[in-house]
Amino acid sequence: MSEPICVEHEDRFTMDPKVKAALNPKQTIDIRDIIFSIHNRSHGDTLLILNQEIDIPFALFKYIWDARPLRVCADGAANRLFEFISKEPLAQLSDYVPNYIVGDLDSITEETRDYYTMQGTKVIQQHSQYATDFTKCIKVIRLHNQYASFPSEFNENLPNYGIDAEKGLLDMCESCQLSTTDINVLAIGAIGGRFDQTINAITELYNARRRVSEGVSLYFLTSTDMILLVPKDGTSIEYGSDDSFRDTLIGNCGLLPMGNKVTLRKTYGLKWDVTNWPSSIESGMVSSNNCFAALDECYMDADKDFVLNIEYFPKKVVSYLNQRK
Amino acid sequence: MSEPICVEHEDRFTMDPKVKAALNPKQTIDIRDIIFSIHNRSHGDTLLILNQEIDIPFALFKYIWDARPLRVCADGAANRLFEFISKEPLAQLSDYVPNYIVGDLDSITEETRDYYTMQGTKVIQQHSQYATDFTKCIKVIRLHNQYASFPSEFNENLPNYGIDAEKGLLDMCESCQLSTTDINVLAIGAIGGRFDQTINAITELYNARRRVSEGVSLYFLTSTDMILLVPKDGTSIEYGSDDSFRDTLIGNCGLLPMGNKVTLRKTYGLKWDVTNWPSSIESGMVSSNNCFAALDECYMDADKDFVLNIEYFPKKVVSYLNQRK
Repeated sequence: MSEPICVEHEDRFTMDPKVKAALNPKQTIDIRDIIFSIHNRSHGDTLLILNQEIDIPFALFKYIWDARPLRVCADGAANRLFEFISKEPLAQLSDYVPNYIVGDLDSITEETRDYYTMQGTKVIQQHSQYATDFTKCIKVIRLHNQYASFPSEFNENLPNYGIDAEKGLLDMCESCQLSTTDINVLAIGAIGGRFDQTINAITELYNARRRVSEGVSLYFLTSTDMILLVPKDGTSIEYGSDDSFRDTLIGNCGLLPMGNKVTLRKTYGLKWDVTNWPSSIESGMVSSNNCFAALDECYMDADKDFVLNIEYFPKKVVSYLNQRK
Repeated sequence: MSEPICVEHEDRFTMDPKVKAALNPKQTIDIRDIIFSIHNRSHGDTLLILNQEIDIPFALFKYIWDARPLRVCADGAANRLFEFISKEPLAQLSDYVPNYIVGDLDSITEETRDYYTMQGTKVIQQHSQYATDFTKCIKVIRLHNQYASFPSEFNENLPNYGIDAEKGLLDMCESCQLSTTDINVLAIGAIGGRFDQTINAITELYNARRRVSEGVSLYFLTSTDMILLVPKDGTSIEYGSDDSFRDTLIGNCGLLPMGNKVTLRKTYGLKWDVTNWPSSIESGMVSSNNCFAALDECYMDADKDFVLNIEYFPKKVVSYLNQRK
């Protein structure tokens, strides 16, 4: 294999049209859409809230809530939602009612559970210790979007709507004929808190990719980062040059080989572009503290999937989104 | 290879003496010592503060500060220390003066820098973009502990004490004859915040292990977890049965194959023990949400190093440590 190369660019540069024309990415990801649904919204768009304190500005939370027709809380995340909305003077609790609360239900308080049940939320218990609450939520999200009789065939007179409380959701996903509807899931509260839970959330990015035929695309939003999986074999990450998105909202990024050792065969558009660069956490060769330098897109080609984090500035995003309204 | 096995134990159990006698761990790590210096302290013990908000209780911070004779701040971490101590009514700023502040110094404020310089802190600038502030701090920690003329040969009349501001610390580590003194570094602020910085911190765990001859052992403390690297080939993690450490201070744990795919050849003492268990983030096979179930120690044997996080309860640790005084 050729020697690894790392080239430093100016903070902003225009891609060479010839180099760009030869890139031929297998997929394109517009980060303005996957996270903030700026150009496209689909009925499969889902907001998944996990059990960490909600630490993004309310205006940003409201935006992503409104942009996504399905909202699901994992167990104790319902308490976090309840607390977050309760302390927001401009918000009404009844305007932020999730469609589902799912998990072993050892964390949700009685007050939270009673409130949302009264408001119409379906609270589904799943005990199985061999799946996390995160996984159980993904099952509900699939069933809701890909199985027409869910939740219409729920039996309100039976405990847990007639769903087996051990692993009924898993069984339904395996036994029912699900459609191939594409689902875009944005999760908040996935990263931070207990470290094994953070890493467990990262495994869910790889799980979704491994089961790409199930149609679930998964993205994380934290108070500092957008986090996604970049598929192997050439991806163009787009952020546009027609407005201020890149220049005012985005900070640094990192190309993180978390699932496996990765060879970054070629990147083009980063402040530090690499070629034939073997990257692994074990070796210490990790491209962190990098950033998008090309005007409107970046190209990344690796031999395996890897995790990309993109720093963003929450308050500036709110101004940007409001200006576009 | 044999089939992977996972066995569930009671929440607490006594190890079978015959099984235990056959384990023969290559190394033993007492988590009460590596983090909280309960039985042993050495002059190489160091507290490294990285640039995240300090979010552990002050009493715990004071304990780990007092237990470690060398204290180093990475650039903007000095602001975090300054803010943290300033808002603590029972603490004096002048009682918490780090020995060194190191980094490219683009984050430290003039006020912080002036204050600590006046108090005697050595503020060392290192510009190099090819090393992180974390790496630069490790260099200073090695030089301080392993090179007798550091910092006594600093020239106070020269800018940056006569140390080349680009990469003088790196050059000194490579060109000077360093001793083999063992150094135990506990870092706070390594995990959390921007995600590529979290992953970069994890690479430092692997770096320290790869360069084990340099004598640096590295551990992280967050507001929820103790985090360490478990070396391959059989390690006993000890936590004692003679006091309340295990039963009141420790929660769940995760065995996290972050550097590479890992085969957990055998664990003994966990709530969910595994044998011949291929673990990777890519495959989704990760032992998270596990916990220490054996009374006083756990055994873990893997074919490669892996990251272990152990949940702890900061406020209870403070009571525990105070009772031992």
